[in-house]
Amino acid sequence: MITPIIMAGGVGSRFWPLSRKDRPKQFLNLVDKNRSMIQATVDRISKLTAHDNIFIATSQDYVEKMQEHLPEIPVDNLTVEPMRKNTAASIGLASIYIEQKSPEGIMVVLPSDHLIIDEASFLDTVEAAVEVADNGDNLVTIGIEATHPETGYGYINYDKKYIQVNGHEVFEVKAFTEKPNREKAERFLEAGTYLWNSGIFVWKVSTIRKMFKLYMPKLDKSLEKMKEAIGTAEEAEIIRAEFEKLDDISIDYGIMEKAKDIYVIPGSFGWDDIGSWPALERVQKRDKQGNVISGHHIGIDTKNTIVHGNGKIITTMGLEDIVIVDTDDAILICDKKKAQEVKEIRNLLADRGLDECL
Amino acid sequence: MITPIIMAGGVGSRFWPLSRKDRPKQFLNLVDKNRSMIQATVDRISKLTAHDNIFIATSQDYVEKMQEHLPEIPVDNLTVEPMRKNTAASIGLASIYIEQKSPEGIMVVLPSDHLIIDEASFLDTVEAAVEVADNGDNLVTIGIEATHPETGYGYINYDKKYIQVNGHEVFEVKAFTEKPNREKAERFLEAGTYLWNSGIFVWKVSTIRKMFKLYMPKLDKSLEKMKEAIGTAEEAEIIRAEFEKLDDISIDYGIMEKAKDIYVIPGSFGWDDIGSWPALERVQKRDKQGNVISGHHIGIDTKNTIVHGNGKIITTMGLEDIVIVDTDDAILICDKKKAQEVKEIRNLLADRGLDECL
Repeated sequence: MITPIIMAGGVGSRFWPLSRKDRPKQFLNLVDKNRSMIQATVDRISKLTAHDNIFIATSQDYVEKMQEHLPEIPVDNLTVEPMRKNTAASIGLASIYIEQKSPEGIMVVLPSDHLIIDEASFLDTVEAAVEVADNGDNLVTIGIEATHPETGYGYINYDKKYIQVNGHEVFEVKAFTEKPNREKAERFLEAGTYLWNSGIFVWKVSTIRKMFKLYMPKLDKSLEKMKEAIGTAEEAEIIRAEFEKLDDISIDYGIMEKAKDIYVIPGSFGWDDIGSWPALERVQKRDKQGNVISGHHIGIDTKNTIVHGNGKIITTMGLEDIVIVDTDDAILICDKKKAQEVKEIRNLLADRGLDECL
Repeated sequence: MITPIIMAGGVGSRFWPLSRKDRPKQFLNLVDKNRSMIQATVDRISKLTAHDNIFIATSQDYVEKMQEHLPEIPVDNLTVEPMRKNTAASIGLASIYIEQKSPEGIMVVLPSDHLIIDEASFLDTVEAAVEVADNGDNLVTIGIEATHPETGYGYINYDKKYIQVNGHEVFEVKAFTEKPNREKAERFLEAGTYLWNSGIFVWKVSTIRKMFKLYMPKLDKSLEKMKEAIGTAEEAEIIRAEFEKLDDISIDYGIMEKAKDIYVIPGSFGWDDIGSWPALERVQKRDKQGNVISGHHIGIDTKNTIVHGNGKIITTMGLEDIVIVDTDDAILICDKKKAQEVKEIRNLLADRGLDECL
């Protein structure tokens, strides 16, 4: 049985001022006007399993919003982290709830805020990964074919030998690597044996529990305690106490970089992590002047500019490569090259105690 | 008796989106946060005469707003033009009302939306002009010492011979010239016998009536009919009928370029016509990065940029030489070099029937 776990605890501050503490990226309708990123993610994976089997890893802050966006997901399937502790802890917590409900479950770990264009191809790739994961204690990941020397993603280096599963090439992973510098990224692209790390992982719940025991024994011990507490009056209290002790470690660093028997399946289903405002240029329709416009805009001599309106008419003259975002209480206007650094603006707002704008 | 007439019929579209059809530039607090341009103009000239003697030339559309801004001015002193017909008609209409109330009045024609920094020097210069105007049928104007070859203003060419009045040099005017091209403006500046035309004129009301009779007989005839109608039941009707017939001619073209006995007094009281958004850089405090900020702003790597906020926090990153104006229903973001062309945006809005934004 496929038991997806959607990772939805992120704050997505790079879409400020549209994204906020209480409205992170997964809740935004960035690509599809009618569906938030997380709604699209659930819709997509629900083609492979019932809503009752879909789990959402999130934090207490987002539980209410999650129920608004995903009324079809049972509230018990929200695995609520008492505090942010990176992906190893999130996946660990989810694994014990899934284990309890479906000991034979096959976890499909999915980011909640990525764009996938070709749904059929994506589902087909996931099914191949599920088959590989089910055949032993394999850790499987889906890697994205790199199109340029991106320095914003981690990379997966794989061995050229492969097996075929349902028409998909399945490679053995040689190494997970952190975000490279430009030079390294260019070497990766040239080598032809690197894929982008999409954050999509597939494994049996029993397998990942074994891996935690093997490579993250401290986390495993906490998970055991938490699992025993599920259903008791002390559940929340014990989870909080154990969570507090956990290290802030990603699943990549804690497991994937250490484990053996890791396989990667290349995915070519049109993927984008929509990491910051300029990503919209890759995935949205651009007008003749190269502008990406959402909302009411009138421009003269305006090129390659991203406008995200909020009701007011936004007028521009003589602009190029600018990002403009209007919201109820804040406006961002920045050079496109700076759009990745919008966190710095948030830091300044925080410094000045303007928490209501974060 | 000094009877100022403040020219306040203009639409000032170059400050869109802050200025609107129903809120032109003279009603904006562009320079002084607490006083609109027209309030500052009235305050200034009221040092020389009672509020009861100050007249305001405006149009029906602005009467209500004028009373809000200038409760101290008697409503009868608003000389209301039934339609826009340029400055000769405005001054003509004002002249008959002033003539009726103060036949000995000395008109001081003042733009309603210019900045004057040194009030004492300005008033002193006006008093000298009044003295010259009172001494015969002289037309007197105050010219601004040119600091650069500006192509946006008309120029006044004067004869080098002068007389002294109360410490002011009074020159005879050789010619009024329209806005020059760059080359011509540079020649004017070099010659040293040209001043900028400030639109400030001083003359006895009886003198300007004589000039209308001499140089604009058609206007004079209409003024006579309108004057006879004042106080009758047909006043509004006759003024409208006569106004409709009038030519669209400026006082410069209709009188000043033709009349003799015109004198100019150089003014050096810190003058600016605040013609468009970038003018604020000349008259407002700039921060260390050269930005002129009004409202709530947080910027990173933002230089020589003008921000006019409206409550929302405006955040900027990696911008240079940009104008940003937020209002309740429209936002303008434009290259500073384009700020003079904001009318083009208004034209596009009008084309699309977005009259509520004009």
